[in-house]
Amino acid sequence: LHFCDRLVHRAEELLLELMTPAELDAYLAECRQLTLGEIKAIIPSERRYQSVLYELMLEYPLRAAKALRPALCIATCRALGGRLESVLHSAAVLELYHNAFLIHDDVEDGSESRRDCPTLHRSYGTPIAVNVGDAMLALALQPLLDNMRLLGMGKALRILQTVARMARESTEGQAIELDWIRNHLWSLNDTDYVRMVYKKTSWYTFIAPMIIGATVAGVPADVLTRIRKFAALLGVAFQIQDDVLNLVGDDRAYGKEAAGDLWEGKRTLIVLHMMRTASASERQLASAILRKPRPRSDAPHASELHTLLSALHADGALSTTARQQIATALERLAPGSNGTAKTHDDISYLLSLVDRHGSIEYARRVAQRFAQKAEILLSHATWIGPSVHRDFLQALVDFVVTRNR
Amino acid sequence: LHFCDRLVHRAEELLLELMTPAELDAYLAECRQLTLGEIKAIIPSERRYQSVLYELMLEYPLRAAKALRPALCIATCRALGGRLESVLHSAAVLELYHNAFLIHDDVEDGSESRRDCPTLHRSYGTPIAVNVGDAMLALALQPLLDNMRLLGMGKALRILQTVARMARESTEGQAIELDWIRNHLWSLNDTDYVRMVYKKTSWYTFIAPMIIGATVAGVPADVLTRIRKFAALLGVAFQIQDDVLNLVGDDRAYGKEAAGDLWEGKRTLIVLHMMRTASASERQLASAILRKPRPRSDAPHASELHTLLSALHADGALSTTARQQIATALERLAPGSNGTAKTHDDISYLLSLVDRHGSIEYARRVAQRFAQKAEILLSHATWIGPSVHRDFLQALVDFVVTRNR
Repeated sequence: LHFCDRLVHRAEELLLELMTPAELDAYLAECRQLTLGEIKAIIPSERRYQSVLYELMLEYPLRAAKALRPALCIATCRALGGRLESVLHSAAVLELYHNAFLIHDDVEDGSESRRDCPTLHRSYGTPIAVNVGDAMLALALQPLLDNMRLLGMGKALRILQTVARMARESTEGQAIELDWIRNHLWSLNDTDYVRMVYKKTSWYTFIAPMIIGATVAGVPADVLTRIRKFAALLGVAFQIQDDVLNLVGDDRAYGKEAAGDLWEGKRTLIVLHMMRTASASERQLASAILRKPRPRSDAPHASELHTLLSALHADGALSTTARQQIATALERLAPGSNGTAKTHDDISYLLSLVDRHGSIEYARRVAQRFAQKAEILLSHATWIGPSVHRDFLQALVDFVVTRNR
Repeated sequence: LHFCDRLVHRAEELLLELMTPAELDAYLAECRQLTLGEIKAIIPSERRYQSVLYELMLEYPLRAAKALRPALCIATCRALGGRLESVLHSAAVLELYHNAFLIHDDVEDGSESRRDCPTLHRSYGTPIAVNVGDAMLALALQPLLDNMRLLGMGKALRILQTVARMARESTEGQAIELDWIRNHLWSLNDTDYVRMVYKKTSWYTFIAPMIIGATVAGVPADVLTRIRKFAALLGVAFQIQDDVLNLVGDDRAYGKEAAGDLWEGKRTLIVLHMMRTASASERQLASAILRKPRPRSDAPHASELHTLLSALHADGALSTTARQQIATALERLAPGSNGTAKTHDDISYLLSLVDRHGSIEYARRVAQRFAQKAEILLSHATWIGPSVHRDFLQALVDFVVTRNR
């Protein structure tokens, strides 16, 4: 009986879950290997050139990563009956684009590490890093033109249009988010957030990869519309979970590197919920903190100097006047080290408000709702037959809201 | 008689010089206005969006500039019988690309001003500036796809291929130059320099604009080959003159902002000549200077602090030990402020070597030789009939080596 119970339970599991987390990982890993092979074919061999340019292009793609975008592109194409060889070019382009933007993002944010290794600009300097990113974007254009021969004019052109739109939507989404921060804007609701995320995340991470995969497979316009809707919902769920992961789990202990969204003053669903649920006085304090700049990357060295000045002053080795003179000059060298930038205590206070008002649970519920809507769309999808690729897309619905990485 | 003399002289002038400098400026200004109109049509109107993204895209293009690339593209197209309306899309794309790269370059180099105004990242912060550049590159793709309808598949595709190659060549050229600096390489000759500049400058500033203009006009392949050669020669002459301008004239007095090539340790024709003409001891000293990093942008504040520490120490307000402790912590905050970075004296010494060995005159002569070769090519060009547009190209040959801006 006990054995039978287990069998029944396993059968139920199989019905509910067509792909286990381990199988999902294996599917991602296989797509990643195929994409890396294609990327290596796109990047010219080093020997012809007098520089390390092409070697450095592989640095980020070769570091451990999910490679979600090419997997989505490949799975959608194959689930709709397209061939692997036809879609690999485009999948590789998506991964090249993504890694180029990661390099530029790291420069923008002055990040120290990426995928557990030093960022490119930290190892090779900012000019080389920015140039490697630009060169990856330059290389990404050629395979899209080669698609003309591979897929014919019509499909190749529609893929180019999709890439152009993807680049436009994501930079617009990014601009909206940066403007909210710059203008200290808080009169925002969840709809504003979802609109921004639709542009910033859905288009770039879900809509473009899936639409390109479907275009390669060659599906009618009404199917593209449904795919776009499914991808949009999944993208919003994915981004909310990203925001949640930024504030929970082990990372939370790291302070600066984790909770980066709070240091940057981002208007996540979590922060928006906290701000509208908080008391007037909490809200006032929180918004004062959120409008402070984040500390510069050299802040630890500056605060080390401040500590030293205090110690020397306490020992009588430094007069009050001399200490003030040095502190004033120091503030010109490292603005904000004086206490005008956000501190760890500030971030702890924001996290306590987020906890007190259940904002993370709220965000998780909203993410679940978006994922459920996507699941319903997929379960009604008669335009996509059964296959391991469809199973992957279905498993992904659960993955985007339960993942912890 | 006197009057006749003047007439003869004027006729000679007309034979030698088909376009006066003022007429050249007017031609450039007209092309610039046409290009700006097209750029404004490409950039979506602001009101649809909740951000300043599209407003900021116009900042750099609207600041005073020659807009050489779109003028070259338009002139080549029209000189070869193409229509203005057919080429404006592509000319505007070249200017968008160029200004996007300027924004990114300014971030890379931490530049304070561009075209006599503050750089975009200084006014709006690095994240917004990098995103505006990326968004301009994203927008540049759509008009190239619209070319399909305007010019037909064949021409539109060849223009896209040229843009892809331009982006690849210029990032490769950039990478070669950055690697030379990073690896402290001096075993370089003029041929290495010309090869690098062919990629970095000729392709981006001359070859792509002219080839695209000629493609729109629709010329046979052998004409494209001749145009590529003319443009390559002109590009090298242009870059050498750029290197010369970096070291001579009023700018020289400004120190850091001028002579930027020496601060960055670039391997220009001038520096290569100086290094191979200098005595062994001069060369050793010069190479030691050139391998030092350039000072960080906050160096003036750091040296202010060093001066303050010296003064406090001299007054007895700071013990030797305390001073050393503070200086050590300061070096961690602002590396190189200790004297490991290049100084103004270093740059003055390099400039004196450049003067002593006549390296600027040497570079000017080489630039002249490249311009002359280009002029000969154009004078033998039977594939290009007489027109104001041809006159502009001819006047440009002189302009690239005599310009002082």
